[in-house]
Amino acid sequence: MSAQAARAPSPQPPILLRETIGPIAVLTLNRPAARNSLSQAMIASLHAELNEIRDDKAVRGVVIAANGRAFSAGHDMKELTARRTDPDRGRAFFAEMMNACSAMMQAVVHLPKPVVAAVQGIATAAGCQLVASCDLAIASEAASFATPGVDIGLFCSTPMVALSRNVPRKQAMEMLLTGEPVPATRAREIGLINRVVAAGTEREAAIALAEQVALKSAYTVKLGKEAFYRQAEMSLADAYRYAAEVMTENMMARDAEEGIGAFIEKRTPTWRDE
Amino acid sequence: MSAQAARAPSPQPPILLRETIGPIAVLTLNRPAARNSLSQAMIASLHAELNEIRDDKAVRGVVIAANGRAFSAGHDMKELTARRTDPDRGRAFFAEMMNACSAMMQAVVHLPKPVVAAVQGIATAAGCQLVASCDLAIASEAASFATPGVDIGLFCSTPMVALSRNVPRKQAMEMLLTGEPVPATRAREIGLINRVVAAGTEREAAIALAEQVALKSAYTVKLGKEAFYRQAEMSLADAYRYAAEVMTENMMARDAEEGIGAFIEKRTPTWRDE
Amino acid sequence: MSAQAARAPSPQPPILLRETIGPIAVLTLNRPAARNSLSQAMIASLHAELNEIRDDKAVRGVVIAANGRAFSAGHDMKELTARRTDPDRGRAFFAEMMNACSAMMQAVVHLPKPVVAAVQGIATAAGCQLVASCDLAIASEAASFATPGVDIGLFCSTPMVALSRNVPRKQAMEMLLTGEPVPATRAREIGLINRVVAAGTEREAAIALAEQVALKSAYTVKLGKEAFYRQAEMSLADAYRYAAEVMTENMMARDAEEGIGAFIEKRTPTWRDE
Repeated sequence: MSAQAARAPSPQPPILLRETIGPIAVLTLNRPAARNSLSQAMIASLHAELNEIRDDKAVRGVVIAANGRAFSAGHDMKELTARRTDPDRGRAFFAEMMNACSAMMQAVVHLPKPVVAAVQGIATAAGCQLVASCDLAIASEAASFATPGVDIGLFCSTPMVALSRNVPRKQAMEMLLTGEPVPATRAREIGLINRVVAAGTEREAAIALAEQVALKSAYTVKLGKEAFYRQAEMSLADAYRYAAEVMTENMMARDAEEGIGAFIEKRTPTWRDE
Repeated sequence: MSAQAARAPSPQPPILLRETIGPIAVLTLNRPAARNSLSQAMIASLHAELNEIRDDKAVRGVVIAANGRAFSAGHDMKELTARRTDPDRGRAFFAEMMNACSAMMQAVVHLPKPVVAAVQGIATAAGCQLVASCDLAIASEAASFATPGVDIGLFCSTPMVALSRNVPRKQAMEMLLTGEPVPATRAREIGLINRVVAAGTEREAAIALAEQVALKSAYTVKLGKEAFYRQAEMSLADAYRYAAEVMTENMMARDAEEGIGAFIEKRTPTWRDE
Repeated sequence: MSAQAARAPSPQPPILLRETIGPIAVLTLNRPAARNSLSQAMIASLHAELNEIRDDKAVRGVVIAANGRAFSAGHDMKELTARRTDPDRGRAFFAEMMNACSAMMQAVVHLPKPVVAAVQGIATAAGCQLVASCDLAIASEAASFATPGVDIGLFCSTPMVALSRNVPRKQAMEMLLTGEPVPATRAREIGLINRVVAAGTEREAAIALAEQVALKSAYTVKLGKEAFYRQAEMSLADAYRYAAEVMTENMMARDAEEGIGAFIEKRTPTWRDE
C-alpha cells in the first residue's frame, strides 16, 4: 500500500498523510520544511494514493491539503539540480519527473471522485497547478497563487496547462510572465478557486464541500465528472452527441431510477454503493 | 404552423405563447404549474417556433421568457419516468428526448437572429441550459440558476455542454457537483448572463436589448452570429483565415456599403430587408 | 528599415513612432486626427516594426501605445471605401487588407517577446482586436472598448477572433451584437485587460510592466510565450505531453541552470543575452 510505503521506510514523519473522515480521504502534504515541494517521492506518493482511492469504494471524495505555511512550492529544485551531474546532465531525470508530475495531475482530473483543494498558504508553480487540476478549490484568505518559474529561468510550462484551463488568457499570462502572487480574493475573481474562507477554516470547508458531493450518487458523480472533461475538448455538435448518450445511459442506471423516483415521491433517495 | 398546433388540440392554455412586438418574437414558456418543464411537447413547440422564425423576415430578434415563478425546471421527470414501463425500459424514448432537446438547443445557437433570455425565476438543468444557449441573457435580481441533476442521480450532462461554454471550469464544476443555486448577481460575475435588472423588468429589458440589435442590418447580424460560433471551435490561424473571408464577403454586401457610406456621410443607414 | 520607411517619405509626422526606453520598444500610433485607424500603411508599419523587433536582441519587451484621444478606431473606412471603384469593386483590396491585418495581429501573438498594450482612449473594432492580441494590457480609467462594426453593417468578424479568446462568450456576444462601449473597469472584470490605472499614467504603467518582464531571462520568456499559445489549442493530454518536453528543454538551457542555481544560492541570476 502506497501510504504505508510512504510511511514505512524511515523514522521521519511521512511526507504525505492520509486520513479518513467519513467517506472523505484527506491527503495532506507534510513536508513543511521543504514548503511541501513536489519531490519525486511526493509525486509518487500522491499518484499512488490516488490510484488506491480510485478503487476504494469506501472513499467518495478527496481533499488535498497541506501542513505548514506553504501549500506547495512546486518542484523540488534541489532534487532536480542534484541530477545535473548525471552523465546526460540530468535530461532523462528531468523528463521522467515532468512526465511523472503531469501523469499525477491528470490522475486528479481522471479520478472518478471529486477532488477539492484546501489551500492554506502560497501555492506556486506545480503547487498552483495542483490546485488548478482539482475539480474544486477552497482557499484561506491568507492563501496566494503564483507561477514564478520565469524568475528562475524555468517557465511554468506544465503548470500553465492547468492554469490556462481555469483562468482567462490575459490573467494567466500576467501570472506566467510576471511571476507575481495573486491573493485569494483575486484568484476567485479570475476563476482559479471557488471560495475564500477565514484563515484556518479552509480544511474544514473543503471537507464539508467534499462531503456535500459525497452525499450524491457515486455512480452519477463518476459519470458526470468524466463527461465534463471529455466534452470540454469537443466541438458543440460532438459534445451534444456524446452528452446525450451519457445522459441516456445515466437514465437507465439504477441510481437515476431511484433518484428520480424519490424526487417525484418527495422522499430521500438511497444510492447504490459503487 | 407550430404555434397553432400547440394551441389547437385542447381548451387548455397553450404551453408556449408567441407574441410579436415590432420586429421581436417573444416566446413565453407557459406551463407554470409544471414549472415550465421541457416536456416533449414543449421542446417540439420551441423547436418548431424557432424554425418558423428562422424563415420569417419580419422577425429580427427573439426573446425567450417564462410565466410563473420558475423560468424552467428542465426535463419533465414525470413524463420520462412514465416510459420506464416501455418494453425497453424507456431507453429509446430517453435517447429520443435527449437528442430532441440537444437539437432544439443547437437551433437556438444556429438561428440567424439574436436570441435573448429573460429569466424571471429559477432556471435549472435544461432550463439553465436554455439560458446558456441563448446569445444574450437578462435576469431578474430574483432569478437563480442551478444544475441539480446530481441530486436525483441524473448528472446534468447535456446542460453542462452549454454551461461549460459560458462559465469558467471550476465555477461550472461547482454548480454541477453540488447542484446548488447561483443567484443572478453571481451568475453575472461568472459569465452566465449579461445583466441583472429589478424583478419584474427582465422581460421589457430583454425586449429592449433584442430591439437594439434588431435595428442593425439583419444580414450583418446573421453573418456575424454564425461566424462567432464557428470560429470559436477553430485554431487561431484557421479562425483568422475564416474570419478574413467572412469580412471580405461582408464588405462586398450591400448593407456594408450602405452602412459604411452612411457612417462616412454622417447619416442614418437604411438596411435592406432580409 | 520600416520605421525609416514610415518616417522618410513626407514632411508629415510619422504615423508610427518608435522609442527605445531601456530594453523596451514603445510603438506609438500617431495618426490622432484619423483616430489612429489601422490604414494599410499603419498595419504595414506595425508589422514591419514587429519583424524588426523580433530579431533585435536589445529589445526585450514591447509597448503599443497611441497619441490623441482614441487608442485606435480600427480599419480606415475611407481608405477601404475608396476602393469600391476598383474593377472588382474592391474585393481584392479588402481581402488583402483583412489578411494583412490578421497577419499583423498574429505577429503580435507570435513575437517571442512580451507585448503590452497601453490604452489611453477608446479602442474599437480592429483597435480592440489589437489590445486583445497583446499578451498584457493596461488601460486608463478613461479608456473604453467596443466592437461596433455591426452599427455600420460590417460585423467585427476578425476582431472577434481575438476578443472571444479573451472574454467569456456572452460578454463577447454583447459587445459584438450591440456595438456598445465597455468601460475600462468592466473590461477588466470580463478579462479583456489586466489593470486599470489613473488617466495619463497608462503609458508609464505599461512600460513598467514590460520592464518587469524584461528583467527575466529572454530565452525563458520566449519559450514560455510560444508554448502558452500552442498548448491552448491542444487537448489536455497533448498539452501535457508537449509542455513536459518544453520544460525538459528549458531545464537543460543555460538560463535555467543559472536561475535555479542563483535561487538555491540566494543570489541574483545573470541571464545570457539572447
